[in-house]
Amino acid sequence: MKALLKPDAGPGLELADVPVPQPGPGEILVKVFGGGICGTDLHIFTWDAWARSRLAPPRVIGHEFCGTIAAVGPGATDLAVGEFISGEGHISCGRCHACRAGAPHICERLEVIGIDRDGAFAEYVVMPAANAWKVGPDISRDVAAIMDPLGNAVHAALETSLAARRVAVIGCGPIGLMAIAICHLVGAVFVAATDVSDTRLALARRMGADLVLDARTENVPVRIHETLNGEGVDVVLEMSGSERGLQDGLRALRNSGWVSVLGLPAADVRVDLANGIIFKGAHLAGIFGRKVWQTWEQGTALLRNGLDITPVITHRFPLERFAEAFELLRAGTAGKVILYV
Amino acid sequence: MKALLKPDAGPGLELADVPVPQPGPGEILVKVFGGGICGTDLHIFTWDAWARSRLAPPRVIGHEFCGTIAAVGPGATDLAVGEFISGEGHISCGRCHACRAGAPHICERLEVIGIDRDGAFAEYVVMPAANAWKVGPDISRDVAAIMDPLGNAVHAALETSLAARRVAVIGCGPIGLMAIAICHLVGAVFVAATDVSDTRLALARRMGADLVLDARTENVPVRIHETLNGEGVDVVLEMSGSERGLQDGLRALRNSGWVSVLGLPAADVRVDLANGIIFKGAHLAGIFGRKVWQTWEQGTALLRNGLDITPVITHRFPLERFAEAFELLRAGTAGKVILYV
Amino acid sequence: MKALLKPDAGPGLELADVPVPQPGPGEILVKVFGGGICGTDLHIFTWDAWARSRLAPPRVIGHEFCGTIAAVGPGATDLAVGEFISGEGHISCGRCHACRAGAPHICERLEVIGIDRDGAFAEYVVMPAANAWKVGPDISRDVAAIMDPLGNAVHAALETSLAARRVAVIGCGPIGLMAIAICHLVGAVFVAATDVSDTRLALARRMGADLVLDARTENVPVRIHETLNGEGVDVVLEMSGSERGLQDGLRALRNSGWVSVLGLPAADVRVDLANGIIFKGAHLAGIFGRKVWQTWEQGTALLRNGLDITPVITHRFPLERFAEAFELLRAGTAGKVILYV
Amino acid sequence: MKALLKPDAGPGLELADVPVPQPGPGEILVKVFGGGICGTDLHIFTWDAWARSRLAPPRVIGHEFCGTIAAVGPGATDLAVGEFISGEGHISCGRCHACRAGAPHICERLEVIGIDRDGAFAEYVVMPAANAWKVGPDISRDVAAIMDPLGNAVHAALETSLAARRVAVIGCGPIGLMAIAICHLVGAVFVAATDVSDTRLALARRMGADLVLDARTENVPVRIHETLNGEGVDVVLEMSGSERGLQDGLRALRNSGWVSVLGLPAADVRVDLANGIIFKGAHLAGIFGRKVWQTWEQGTALLRNGLDITPVITHRFPLERFAEAFELLRAGTAGKVILYV
Repeated sequence: MKALLKPDAGPGLELADVPVPQPGPGEILVKVFGGGICGTDLHIFTWDAWARSRLAPPRVIGHEFCGTIAAVGPGATDLAVGEFISGEGHISCGRCHACRAGAPHICERLEVIGIDRDGAFAEYVVMPAANAWKVGPDISRDVAAIMDPLGNAVHAALETSLAARRVAVIGCGPIGLMAIAICHLVGAVFVAATDVSDTRLALARRMGADLVLDARTENVPVRIHETLNGEGVDVVLEMSGSERGLQDGLRALRNSGWVSVLGLPAADVRVDLANGIIFKGAHLAGIFGRKVWQTWEQGTALLRNGLDITPVITHRFPLERFAEAFELLRAGTAGKVILYV
Repeated sequence: MKALLKPDAGPGLELADVPVPQPGPGEILVKVFGGGICGTDLHIFTWDAWARSRLAPPRVIGHEFCGTIAAVGPGATDLAVGEFISGEGHISCGRCHACRAGAPHICERLEVIGIDRDGAFAEYVVMPAANAWKVGPDISRDVAAIMDPLGNAVHAALETSLAARRVAVIGCGPIGLMAIAICHLVGAVFVAATDVSDTRLALARRMGADLVLDARTENVPVRIHETLNGEGVDVVLEMSGSERGLQDGLRALRNSGWVSVLGLPAADVRVDLANGIIFKGAHLAGIFGRKVWQTWEQGTALLRNGLDITPVITHRFPLERFAEAFELLRAGTAGKVILYV
Repeated sequence: MKALLKPDAGPGLELADVPVPQPGPGEILVKVFGGGICGTDLHIFTWDAWARSRLAPPRVIGHEFCGTIAAVGPGATDLAVGEFISGEGHISCGRCHACRAGAPHICERLEVIGIDRDGAFAEYVVMPAANAWKVGPDISRDVAAIMDPLGNAVHAALETSLAARRVAVIGCGPIGLMAIAICHLVGAVFVAATDVSDTRLALARRMGADLVLDARTENVPVRIHETLNGEGVDVVLEMSGSERGLQDGLRALRNSGWVSVLGLPAADVRVDLANGIIFKGAHLAGIFGRKVWQTWEQGTALLRNGLDITPVITHRFPLERFAEAFELLRAGTAGKVILYV
Repeated sequence: MKALLKPDAGPGLELADVPVPQPGPGEILVKVFGGGICGTDLHIFTWDAWARSRLAPPRVIGHEFCGTIAAVGPGATDLAVGEFISGEGHISCGRCHACRAGAPHICERLEVIGIDRDGAFAEYVVMPAANAWKVGPDISRDVAAIMDPLGNAVHAALETSLAARRVAVIGCGPIGLMAIAICHLVGAVFVAATDVSDTRLALARRMGADLVLDARTENVPVRIHETLNGEGVDVVLEMSGSERGLQDGLRALRNSGWVSVLGLPAADVRVDLANGIIFKGAHLAGIFGRKVWQTWEQGTALLRNGLDITPVITHRFPLERFAEAFELLRAGTAGKVILYV
């Protein structure tokens, strides 16, 4: 079968011909429809420090995807051939403290599809049956392909109640963009959005942000306070992974505010703990992955209730044109890019 | 000045001529614009057991209201003559355990305007400055007149997150009706509503309920489960004060569900604790009054964000026609009725 | 092997000779050391309405137990022959909404060992490997035999913070008695305990209750308020399953208080919703089973940190003398009774 | 009267003779018994950048204190001459968003006694009646003098439940030392403590820490993991205000852990957001001041229930010997130092 492969240590990817994998006990074989390219995939493509430390080529990449079950391994009793599913990319061990406490999303021995085992930018992928989320026909296949990152946005946005609250979304990559729409749908009364890319700022407007700020040229906390009669936001969703983004968010935050931190910085970040968190009595919550399966239930319910994330999908390519897709991502001129298999 | 008075122990009310009150230290005098008739007022009108045990006539009634500050007593430094305010009807002592713990809405020595001291169905009312909520011109005076009961709805609905959750509103008096609209605005993906009055069921539809059930003829939990593919609701807002309402709500509830109980039953209610609460791991929260001032901030923010409660106001009368107004309430053929002073 | 059997529909139990069961996939065979008799077992013994509606004889009973793994079925990879374990009596389905949301203790398709499948009052029991909790040598076997009901006490007591709070434990069966000791260990500054049995009231004193009240002769809420300078308790642990117990608890509760409801009433209970819950802004939480495995982790940690529940074990019998044991329970003159196999 | 005064901009303090202040409306005059020296007072003494930016001399300092009410201003109706009180040092405005939401401890216009107005290292201090906490005879005067910093420890420790949890207290100044004892009293099953002063490490042992680590020579997270069989702590109380302390705490933290951050760093701190907070799904809560009055109720209840913080008080001086006291603090060879007036 064809597969998007990191063949060996070094930059780049190649479209390769590899054997179709076979599902073992508790696993399923999925005929892939398509998937979204994640920032992680770009790290693997460029072969940065993180990728070098984590990936062991050869490896088929891709962890945001949907497809049709083509075969069911022994013991995977809840699923049947022909069912359409979206994939949860994080595989939890089921035995560590976090798993046993009902929090498998922060499993201490987490494996990731497309990183620690072969992924979904291929005609077929093998995955644990326990990682499959059945998707009904009322959800489009393009959306089903990116329910994994949608879940990140849902997890971050719903970690505290947004009802009647003011929110700042710092960083308008695909997850931030999806979060903007979610915020409004769950009762936020004001959503500011910031980014450093014209494309993304335009998408933020399209997703319904009430105030869109270019962090390259605007003083984000000052502009937010001006807009809110001198008050700060109740909630910050930090999705930029940048030091400046977190600092802006903390300055924009009201006393007793909440910060969901999802964006992964490449290095340590400097934080004004005293003024940003302590004097404000603020809460800061680390957000990783998706609560399995609460987040998926919530995301599905919101999609059925009118959540429209399709504007976030700006480009669609066949797998063969992966090079163009990665170039768009690298240039920062795309929202979410989908590869069809 | 004219005032709606309970002149002495016994049924009925009369429009009387009483002296204009004077504000003491920390108090303000308000020129009343109008107010909503509450179920409590009806109890006082009919002089039932509760009213007999609580009210000491003569008493001017009315505790949902808005108006313009006409005079400011000594020490009421944050308010000025001419400001337009809505009244918080519950006066907290500021010194009991609850007040000192930041929960004045469950003050142990609560006094209520229009019950424990003269109320607002009059040309003027004197109230503590600490009970005045300034209302801007972007909120209509009719809405300002009923921000107190709106607060009850906000308090009940926002006590748990409704984002991506299914809700049943049991009882569609004015507070239940307002709650329906709030639920949708803060992310509920399904709202069922029940009542026993055709008028109110029609209003529930108008407020946007997804499933409207006549509790006189329908099996509420069965119908809800049918509609939700065999599942229950995540949240029940009990606003009927009826035993049957609470029982229906608990049967309709999903495991780990939440019940906000606001409706005041006239007597003890029988509850199936084992099946309704224990086996389900359910939470039940008593809701009383409004969190001061969080609830008011939230209500105001929702009103500014598109919450429309005006369909709940079905009738408007001048104070002189109070008898017609109370008759409508007694017949159960009205939503919220406003008396203009 | 010998086993305590409900042979057919009707009162009583018999010591029978039955085949040793064999573990299937994902199951283990446990050589039973001993187990505690639960109130549920007494219902089965007396064959009351609940037992008639739930149990399908013949059935070996017993669901609180410990023992040594004697054989491991296919796929039960985390356990080994010779390991000593305590049994979680509730078997969750893993697929319902509650299970998928990390709350298997309120599984919608729960099965119970000793009720829905053969139990542990026998030389051997077969159970899912997923229900085994490994117990180290620092915990005595008698205690290991009752870690299931200990878990109920832990679950109820730790559902809200008891740090610096006043508590009333209503009902001093074994779970209530264990809760008394837990309350003190986790920071409760006052623990009142009530019951209607002299034996249990004496045990409540022994477990460290600060105020022990005989609910047959004392006005529980009045006595609690007197002791606390007119104030109520912050938390009630309702473990009596009696209407009067819940009513006493709600009257003894302070505004904004918390009630963990664990005791299962035999019928509907009448509750003063207005004064007991609504006006107080109280929270009431249904407590069922044990959070798997948080509760077991907490219970183990508390045992290692000095929690002593051995005074609760008042009687120990060999399995053959089960009739004496059940008679003691029926008479209400025992704490926890253990049967050794 | 005599008073410890910062006479003008520059290092040092002097014992001066100043007029006895008079209580205005809502204020009381307190005859001071004594007070604790806070780290803040040392900043003022040394006249560092923070002090220069905040203090406007001349100013009598001191904000941890107790004493006897000597006079009551108009309107301070709940207090009487002769009552013994401990002082809450933070004065909230009562009108900002935080105050109106029941969170005056993070008032947006906070004033501090001894910083923004004259303080309590004097024979008499004037303070708002609303900042006085009545202290009964069962609490010693030395303890009453430091209930303000005790409250910081209580606030930080009780912000999440410590029942059956493992805790690391980073930084063993007086607040950290008090926290160690509190942790054990409210159910923590393991308390590690770290510092960089021999005196404080010895005090940490005395307060009951299970593991005491010298952060100058030990690898704190490694040693904690070794002690806990490779697992981390559930809760970190960051009380050092040092970058290294926070970093150690985050490395020692278990997935889904909680961090109460109280220590005020002098500058921005670098944080490994990805590994320390995001991947762990950790919560970080800023802790400032004391919840008024919940924290005071909790602290009083714990003191009455056996909390002994007197070992933390290592030195006592008359006000005249203030220079020796500040020298001890500067050398880091003291716990809490009390000055008697």
